Amino acid sequence: MHGLMMNMPLLISSILDHAERHHPTIEIVSRRTEGDIHRTNWGQVAKRSRQLASQLQSAGVQAGENIATLAWNGYRHVEVYYAVSGMGAVVHTLNPRLFPEQLVYIINHAKDTTLFFDSTFAPLVKAIAPACPTVKRWIQMCDEQAMPAEPAVAGCLNYEQFLAGGSADYAWPVLDENSACGLCYTSGTTGNPKGALYSHRSTVLHAMAACTPDALGISSRDTVLPVVPMFHVNAWGLPYIGAMVGAKMVMPGGALDGASIYTLMEEEKVNISAGVPTVWLGLLNYVQQNKLKFSTFNRTVIGGSAAPPAMIRTLNDLGVEVIHAWGMTELSPLGTVCRLKAKHADLPREAQQKVLEKQGVAIYGVDIKIVNDEEEELPWNGEAFGDLLVRGHWVVSGYYGGDGQNAFSRDKQGRLWFRTGDVSKIDADGFMQITDRSKDVIKSGGEWISSIDLENVAMSHPAVHEAAVISARHPKWDERPLLVVVKKPDAQVSREDLLAFYQGKVAKWSIPDDVAFVDELPHTATGKIQKLKLREQFKDHVLPA
Amino acid sequence: MHGLMMNMPLLISSILDHAERHHPTIEIVSRRTEGDIHRTNWGQVAKRSRQLASQLQSAGVQAGENIATLAWNGYRHVEVYYAVSGMGAVVHTLNPRLFPEQLVYIINHAKDTTLFFDSTFAPLVKAIAPACPTVKRWIQMCDEQAMPAEPAVAGCLNYEQFLAGGSADYAWPVLDENSACGLCYTSGTTGNPKGALYSHRSTVLHAMAACTPDALGISSRDTVLPVVPMFHVNAWGLPYIGAMVGAKMVMPGGALDGASIYTLMEEEKVNISAGVPTVWLGLLNYVQQNKLKFSTFNRTVIGGSAAPPAMIRTLNDLGVEVIHAWGMTELSPLGTVCRLKAKHADLPREAQQKVLEKQGVAIYGVDIKIVNDEEEELPWNGEAFGDLLVRGHWVVSGYYGGDGQNAFSRDKQGRLWFRTGDVSKIDADGFMQITDRSKDVIKSGGEWISSIDLENVAMSHPAVHEAAVISARHPKWDERPLLVVVKKPDAQVSREDLLAFYQGKVAKWSIPDDVAFVDELPHTATGKIQKLKLREQFKDHVLPA
Repeated sequence: MHGLMMNMPLLISSILDHAERHHPTIEIVSRRTEGDIHRTNWGQVAKRSRQLASQLQSAGVQAGENIATLAWNGYRHVEVYYAVSGMGAVVHTLNPRLFPEQLVYIINHAKDTTLFFDSTFAPLVKAIAPACPTVKRWIQMCDEQAMPAEPAVAGCLNYEQFLAGGSADYAWPVLDENSACGLCYTSGTTGNPKGALYSHRSTVLHAMAACTPDALGISSRDTVLPVVPMFHVNAWGLPYIGAMVGAKMVMPGGALDGASIYTLMEEEKVNISAGVPTVWLGLLNYVQQNKLKFSTFNRTVIGGSAAPPAMIRTLNDLGVEVIHAWGMTELSPLGTVCRLKAKHADLPREAQQKVLEKQGVAIYGVDIKIVNDEEEELPWNGEAFGDLLVRGHWVVSGYYGGDGQNAFSRDKQGRLWFRTGDVSKIDADGFMQITDRSKDVIKSGGEWISSIDLENVAMSHPAVHEAAVISARHPKWDERPLLVVVKKPDAQVSREDLLAFYQGKVAKWSIPDDVAFVDELPHTATGKIQKLKLREQFKDHVLPA
Repeated sequence: MHGLMMNMPLLISSILDHAERHHPTIEIVSRRTEGDIHRTNWGQVAKRSRQLASQLQSAGVQAGENIATLAWNGYRHVEVYYAVSGMGAVVHTLNPRLFPEQLVYIINHAKDTTLFFDSTFAPLVKAIAPACPTVKRWIQMCDEQAMPAEPAVAGCLNYEQFLAGGSADYAWPVLDENSACGLCYTSGTTGNPKGALYSHRSTVLHAMAACTPDALGISSRDTVLPVVPMFHVNAWGLPYIGAMVGAKMVMPGGALDGASIYTLMEEEKVNISAGVPTVWLGLLNYVQQNKLKFSTFNRTVIGGSAAPPAMIRTLNDLGVEVIHAWGMTELSPLGTVCRLKAKHADLPREAQQKVLEKQGVAIYGVDIKIVNDEEEELPWNGEAFGDLLVRGHWVVSGYYGGDGQNAFSRDKQGRLWFRTGDVSKIDADGFMQITDRSKDVIKSGGEWISSIDLENVAMSHPAVHEAAVISARHPKWDERPLLVVVKKPDAQVSREDLLAFYQGKVAKWSIPDDVAFVDELPHTATGKIQKLKLREQFKDHVLPA
């Protein structure tokens, strides 16, 4: 027997319709590549998104076609998100920090037919265009008068001119909610990038879950500045969440340095932000060096990599609550979020801090488990650690084009699980803590050593700007930890100081064997430390006897 | 092109699975009909729900079968919710405050095959059983030793004994998410009760939306006491929400008087509650008469009828934030919730209060509109008022058995809307305010007068316990407002005092023509004032010239 309820598909367009009807005057403020601060609102964005969709349709774009973007966070990028998905095509966000050859691989793999780009990326577009034969339309996202005399690519269109040809009377089609709406490639550290193909249903459910108080907790009272880029797993869903709840959005464009972010936060009264740990280093340095305070900023979501406890403390001291989250491109991205439970309310601050350093509890819609090499589920006791597997409404069931099938396995009940490649432990309250990427674990004489634990200790040393721990070859123990450190400007610290700093903080046998000082660490296009590259760099490193 | 995401149905059982895996130790505390306070947790409830489901299956209950409950809020009622829906049958909550003949009508209309009941309702069961031939199983929800020597009905089973025969190894079936999971009849003031048949999908989506900060905002840090009964639109979704987020639940059973609720709130550190306006009268009287304070209770959701501003102020003065919401049985029930937006943050308290007296903004998943008699949409200017229509994922598309089809209509785009029977206005920020039930509007010489506005004024008079305004026949104006008042114990107030109290508070022509004092007002089974009955009672009332 079926229920007698209205049957409406969960569509991206329904989010924008909701914003237009119920939150039309709520602002989207953007720092543009034109150099100015631009103001619009959800009502205007809804209207222009329909115009853009109608014009894409007139231009011959079909449902299911992949439409690429190379763009910062800004209102035009938001319009492209809604226009493309709303009309039934697929918005494919490209990460401009990838190497040109990776971009070319991805664009050809996805057979993108149209590419929207910010003026910043005109040189990049010029470089890759000849190698991208599937792209029939190049659209530069700027005012008409800001178009360069010499186009980045022959026949390049102007966004505003193109959009102006469309009609705001366009009506969103009623699509199957399982239709694809978005595509994002993981910038894997090994092998070719692999695509996660999101559906309307998965994206809407993810946004609903991400709003809840145990997740990001975003409401119509919030002013949100996504530092996390819209090319990084849809800025963790924030462009959808903002429209869903009617939050004011503040879009930083390409100006992600500490001074620019700080100014925007203060001028637009931002109270919540989100980003990977590395982006906060710049902002915190700027604030501390200039002895500044935040007037309204009081909450931030940190994910992508584990946030070092020292960074959490610094933000707390500045009056900013840190919401530690864990996710992946393959999870849309939200999997777990760290929020105190009722039972933690009366704990002293230090003990609460310990809880908040974990990656948190699975939100409804996601299930997690840790398994050993025999695929047996391990206990949740805060000690046992193993490979982290997930399943859920917004978890991929495979990669675009059939790549990477070894990342999926079925349990005895026939349920599909995705192997995250993370190693973690889970405590009795369900709080998960990543101990490592499985390929970064240090295997020392049969014991596993967590590189993240060792990095967190180093990051709490006042002279350390950034730290990474990698395995180095050892004649007796196979692998032993090597600490690689970037010092703070003008800070002095020796190898011996740092090794002594570990005494009493971690088990003696897990203390690194050596320290290497470097000027900077290599990062992936999404801001994570590239340990593969570091291991290559130090592959001949000789540990002291 | 379809997205490559895991395809999992939105099922009630998935909520309980989530609670068992991620929040197993979070408590459900119940005041039982046995007289004691009972403690269990989500892990135990999950296990017992599977046992119960397996035993229902063994007893021959089929998917799609309607299983009734006559029960207070308690852990066993929660188990029945999950067991019945989880196995694919339909949990049909009966309102014990209905007249026995209405219950008989509903049970026969739904063809309920099994009826679970609390010991409190044994006499009621005894009275109706002979008229309910479809019910094959009667199950009394109490400990084995609490079973009466004389059963309420021949062959009556004991809940604990029945459940003990089941197996916790039972595995929930993977159902179609559009399957029916719950059935609730509206206690319509005219005609026969009509059934709303919820689906798994609609119920899960409703629970997800209800958790968000702009709705009820419930998290794993909350301890929730639903005063709203589980037979009143699934206690507004709270039994699902509690499991979804891992909130502690405190279930008051049948002891809904001020003293019992207050004690339970204090002892179990309840911080959030929910109920219709009338239930708060008893609690507030008790607290004020005994000069008490709330130690932890700081947030309540009020819906079902408009909360009088005076009640909101009293609760605020006691440190309790009032979240005004609007919904209906046909909406699962949540439609709009009143939360301040960012733009209201700097308003003075009085101005904020004015906003919070409205029923609020539609949450994502629901759309609302007001129309005139020609079905034309009216502007959102805070002035125009008309019939309120809704659509959304958790809005009924028809009534069970095909009743009441005139409540549904299609717009020019072919989209289905449900006619709520409420009359309301909507302001430019999307805040909806109910001005009346359409049948309660007072039509005075071509002008419409809102009975709710007039009741709110009366409720703010210190001598008034409860007030209702109804239309009385008038030779010249057709209808004129008559104020019917229950005075507070020992309070003195005259007809002339009350009429004078309206001066300057409402338009002169809308001031009631007369006042009638009564000992109590008639209420519906869900706690609303029965205006139909009042109008009958005063149908011969002669207004002063």
